[in-house]
Amino acid sequence: MTNLILCGGAGTRLWPLSRTTRPKQFVPLFDGRTLFEETVRRNRGVVDRYFIASNAGQMGLAREQLTRCGVSEFGSLVEPVGRNTAPAIALACLRLPADEIVFVTPSDHRMTKADAYLQAVLRAQALASEGFLVTFGIHPAYPETGFGYIEADGERVTSFREKPDLATAEGYLSSGRYFWNSGMFVFRAGVFLSELERHSPEVLAACRRVAGAQPTAAEMSAIPSISIDYAVMEKSDKVRVVACDPGWSDLGSFDALADEVAADPSGNRMLGADTLVSIDARNNLVVGAGRQVALVGVEDLLVVDTPDALLIVKKGKSQMVKDVVAELKKRGSGLLE
Amino acid sequence: MTNLILCGGAGTRLWPLSRTTRPKQFVPLFDGRTLFEETVRRNRGVVDRYFIASNAGQMGLAREQLTRCGVSEFGSLVEPVGRNTAPAIALACLRLPADEIVFVTPSDHRMTKADAYLQAVLRAQALASEGFLVTFGIHPAYPETGFGYIEADGERVTSFREKPDLATAEGYLSSGRYFWNSGMFVFRAGVFLSELERHSPEVLAACRRVAGAQPTAAEMSAIPSISIDYAVMEKSDKVRVVACDPGWSDLGSFDALADEVAADPSGNRMLGADTLVSIDARNNLVVGAGRQVALVGVEDLLVVDTPDALLIVKKGKSQMVKDVVAELKKRGSGLLE
Repeated sequence: MTNLILCGGAGTRLWPLSRTTRPKQFVPLFDGRTLFEETVRRNRGVVDRYFIASNAGQMGLAREQLTRCGVSEFGSLVEPVGRNTAPAIALACLRLPADEIVFVTPSDHRMTKADAYLQAVLRAQALASEGFLVTFGIHPAYPETGFGYIEADGERVTSFREKPDLATAEGYLSSGRYFWNSGMFVFRAGVFLSELERHSPEVLAACRRVAGAQPTAAEMSAIPSISIDYAVMEKSDKVRVVACDPGWSDLGSFDALADEVAADPSGNRMLGADTLVSIDARNNLVVGAGRQVALVGVEDLLVVDTPDALLIVKKGKSQMVKDVVAELKKRGSGLLE
Repeated sequence: MTNLILCGGAGTRLWPLSRTTRPKQFVPLFDGRTLFEETVRRNRGVVDRYFIASNAGQMGLAREQLTRCGVSEFGSLVEPVGRNTAPAIALACLRLPADEIVFVTPSDHRMTKADAYLQAVLRAQALASEGFLVTFGIHPAYPETGFGYIEADGERVTSFREKPDLATAEGYLSSGRYFWNSGMFVFRAGVFLSELERHSPEVLAACRRVAGAQPTAAEMSAIPSISIDYAVMEKSDKVRVVACDPGWSDLGSFDALADEVAADPSGNRMLGADTLVSIDARNNLVVGAGRQVALVGVEDLLVVDTPDALLIVKKGKSQMVKDVVAELKKRGSGLLE
């Protein structure tokens, strides 16, 4: 089985921790490891090979971190222009044997329950070897409105649902039939390509027109930008879902990041090398690189301390970090890179 | 007239901005000037000479900043051990001609109304030349419980009052007869020494026992530690008060500091070189040395950003910064120096 690791992302939701030149998946987070590294390590027991799809800038970081994990050889697809997931996966599958089982994963998610995770991957691998396109359904922990959902009946998919409103999400949660769509997939390369041909032939045709091993910017730009869900998964009748509870987080915001860090008795959480003195301070997260931080009388703050930028966000408002990034972009700040 | 500038203070209430080796009065604050520098400059029009009382470490900083203000000659008293204000003032007065008028000021206060200030000083100088011990009464702006008060009937002092509770302070404010005790005094050196002899003879006797120009640690330790208010002002019948409203602040906390900084339309205030992006953030103070700061969804925070330490305090709680300092002391942190 080949682990196709997709490295996308502009690195804006966790600014200033992540930057365009070092997005989230390449930032040391838990025990000094990056999410990319964690991805490689957690899959090592079940995959034989790695294949990395990323832009040119991130490929260097990926190579460096693969080496650190003891992986010196891997396939690669350098995307000069991002065209979403379906083209990246198709271009990778075109470079693999048709019967190779491909395990597509993001590079910037976290799993805290290794056993549940591996068990789900092995079940997905078995279904993929039978010719199915397998997706993973994460047991929802709360009525999140920022994710898509998969409606399931056992391992059969009943429907894919767009990001719901809160009332709908609450209904999903209580029904027990809906799962978060995690963006991980397992299938044979040939099965994926034939299903892509069937449901989005123009995407596959554009991918086939890429002449060399790596697409040029012109070739890449000619491919429709479309997700694997839209292009294939929501249309194919060969789809199966493996429901699981692998302790998953997409770390899509500092609020999500805070949930992953252990709290002291006052609810304060520290990630990184900062030292904390807290006086009458509760339920704060401090992410830092080695300074002394003192919190007095404050609560529910997300404090992100980097050498050249400091972010302080009220808990529950970390989605607005994108507005900070937009403002810095407007000002021509170099701190986004 | 000689301006006797008292430089005391351990630099704890504005940590991490001020440190023991660079306390509040020597930290560049407004327009890059220190409070010590502002003190020297504001008095330049009314005094002929300067006399600095400080510990050895601060004397070097004082000399440097006096030079920057164009003052190359000045009297000095290096206190090997701090013994509060009465001994420092007495030791200085013993080194000055008996008829010299001495204008005692702290080094770490701010005045924003130069005209009202100078007018009050000139009135005090006139009273001092008539043989009075003159103190200044600041029109109270609000019922502060952290200051002592002076009860006045015109220029006569009716009583000195300790730090009041809130109800008492509110009564003081509405009566119109009570003023904040600012720690500034004007008198002839000889008048002060004879009143000290009369009311606290043991203090003067101990000061007279200092042999050389600068006291040794042993000599200094033998002098009782006592404030000028307790030793003389609260007992003498030669005391007068000049009531004034010179835009005074003792900058005794980050809350007090915030009041001195202009606010943008959202109530956010910036002091120093940091750059701010604020999204849905109100009534915050950021003190910094040049980083990018982004505030999202937060209000009423005091953020103090220095190269090696970051402090975040809820407005109204900045008195608790001393607890941070105590905790760092317990941990043996080098960040207090």
